[in-house]
Amino acid sequence: MLKLYYTPQTCALAAHIALEKAGAHYETERLDFSKNEQRSAEYLRVNPKGRVPALATDRGVLTEIPAILAYVAQSYPQATLAPLNDAFAFAQVQSFNSYLCSTVHVAHAHRVRGNRWADELAAIEAMKKKVPQSVGECFSLIERDMLTGPWVMGDAYTVCDMYLFTIAQWLEGDGVDITRLPKVIDHRRRMLADPVVARIIAAELAR
Amino acid sequence: MLKLYYTPQTCALAAHIALEKAGAHYETERLDFSKNEQRSAEYLRVNPKGRVPALATDRGVLTEIPAILAYVAQSYPQATLAPLNDAFAFAQVQSFNSYLCSTVHVAHAHRVRGNRWADELAAIEAMKKKVPQSVGECFSLIERDMLTGPWVMGDAYTVCDMYLFTIAQWLEGDGVDITRLPKVIDHRRRMLADPVVARIIAAELAR
Repeated sequence: MLKLYYTPQTCALAAHIALEKAGAHYETERLDFSKNEQRSAEYLRVNPKGRVPALATDRGVLTEIPAILAYVAQSYPQATLAPLNDAFAFAQVQSFNSYLCSTVHVAHAHRVRGNRWADELAAIEAMKKKVPQSVGECFSLIERDMLTGPWVMGDAYTVCDMYLFTIAQWLEGDGVDITRLPKVIDHRRRMLADPVVARIIAAELAR
Repeated sequence: MLKLYYTPQTCALAAHIALEKAGAHYETERLDFSKNEQRSAEYLRVNPKGRVPALATDRGVLTEIPAILAYVAQSYPQATLAPLNDAFAFAQVQSFNSYLCSTVHVAHAHRVRGNRWADELAAIEAMKKKVPQSVGECFSLIERDMLTGPWVMGDAYTVCDMYLFTIAQWLEGDGVDITRLPKVIDHRRRMLADPVVARIIAAELAR
């Protein structure tokens, strides 16, 4: 059986929604960042990167959200969570998810994980200060060029929607002016109105 | 016909090698960062992100290395550049490439692109200072846990090898002690010994 290691309010939410939407048979294990559980010896044996999410499968552990989302989409084709028989359309999905992980999430991480890239407190503060601008620029691009509508890829609801929704939850915390992002915010509202999504969020927060 | 927009000594090299190894019919266009050509109005119409690489296809432009590599592998299945009929193995390829783009390349970028994440010069200098450590930690993980050998995915040569090779070219510039990375350096040496790879590098540098 699949097992998802997650922490609430992280990008693991995208994988959690995908598993549920796919109709997968899975269990979950919650890690508490405040107790540094993602760095425990036990968890480092699961994921040596010491991060979430990780998806344990019968064949081994998968990490990195774009890879997990592609795996779920390909493993449960009846759920049609990605265009699986069209290399170009599938690459568009991968491209969108790759942008979220390598640029948007990274920009966001400079608010709370600056110590990954500098030690001096003043430098970490300087990073925090630029987050509204850097994350804001990413989302302006998404708003203008990438969110086709109604869903990210157009009429088809895909794993991209789960991932965009997850990161868009952090906009206010990142100090981004959401009034300039009507499409992104409407997308977020529609995602949150999905009872499955609401149930997953509630389940992650409940203990 | 496919058209690859690239700049020498960037991650576009991985896409360039993949196209050549796939036997694809393609042309290239070189962008000069010193003239800021990646921000020209003409190129921003191709890729609004203002970065390389971009791969123009008959159906539109693809960006982000992991997506381009997956597209090339899926479009030229006879070249067997990725395990296409095994969702778990394909996800392992995607996971490796996603780690390179979202963590390793990002750590490297703090040496030369710190202004993406902070404005103060002192902060940018502080970022530069940590690059040997942050990139070094990434490559220690690759050396210990991720490079199966002889190729990244084991016996099968895949797009992961092209991408790892590309980023491993930057190790000395990033100040990483390569004597602690014997597997990574042997992999780099074997990649460079491939006449196709050597020819692509020479073609990118020639004008």
